[in-house]
Amino acid sequence: MPKIKAVNHVAVVVDDMEKSLSFWRDALGMELHELRDAPAEKSQVAFLPVAGAEVELVMPTSDDSGIAKYLAKRGPGMHHLCLEVDDIDGMMTQLKGRNVRLINEEPRVAVDGKKYAFIHPESTGGVLVELYQI
Amino acid sequence: MPKIKAVNHVAVVVDDMEKSLSFWRDALGMELHELRDAPAEKSQVAFLPVAGAEVELVMPTSDDSGIAKYLAKRGPGMHHLCLEVDDIDGMMTQLKGRNVRLINEEPRVAVDGKKYAFIHPESTGGVLVELYQI
Repeated sequence: MPKIKAVNHVAVVVDDMEKSLSFWRDALGMELHELRDAPAEKSQVAFLPVAGAEVELVMPTSDDSGIAKYLAKRGPGMHHLCLEVDDIDGMMTQLKGRNVRLINEEPRVAVDGKKYAFIHPESTGGVLVELYQI
Repeated sequence: MPKIKAVNHVAVVVDDMEKSLSFWRDALGMELHELRDAPAEKSQVAFLPVAGAEVELVMPTSDDSGIAKYLAKRGPGMHHLCLEVDDIDGMMTQLKGRNVRLINEEPRVAVDGKKYAFIHPESTGGVLVELYQI
């Protein structure tokens, strides 16, 4: 049986990276591990790890990206919850067998080799859930 | 310096507990540690722990609760992110010194002795953040 191993990260869509970092990094004192552009997603991402999990702040850098549209429609706030799974292929098969609505029918592979897939909020109780196999 | 130690839980507001559990417990296979009524919050809460963190599903049981109003206004989805802190009093002082907008000016104490306080989304980039000292 495929198994959820951990909460990997919580992604937050923000409209002002510096203002957001003034809270997460400066006021809360969380470590900013990395701040980088993600051209493929037309966004800038800040990674703030804590005890094996991570808060990710995502700011769109172009108005025509999916994340920009999300921000325009819903405003800043939590975007998705990412769970680590030990066997993403097995989990996807299991989810399909239970008629869970998937955004990615098959796992995708990131540039760093991680396999990931998104599950539609309709099936989760309103949460965009990402699965990661590291 | 007070320090954020971990992501403690992610709370999700749901409108149908059984349907939500059919995803989180049955399809994903996460352990349902406890499902109980929380009369003080006029809600039912499901606790699904994973590797030191937890997904909490919260369903209002009355139309006049804060959580019911949130659900009516925003629909189901992620409600708040809870971070564990080693010194909540010190952290609250630090946040006030940086003009972070707080929902609870002073930490509150839960029935189980945990100290907690909420930070207003206005200061965080749109996320309702809870701090916990266990």
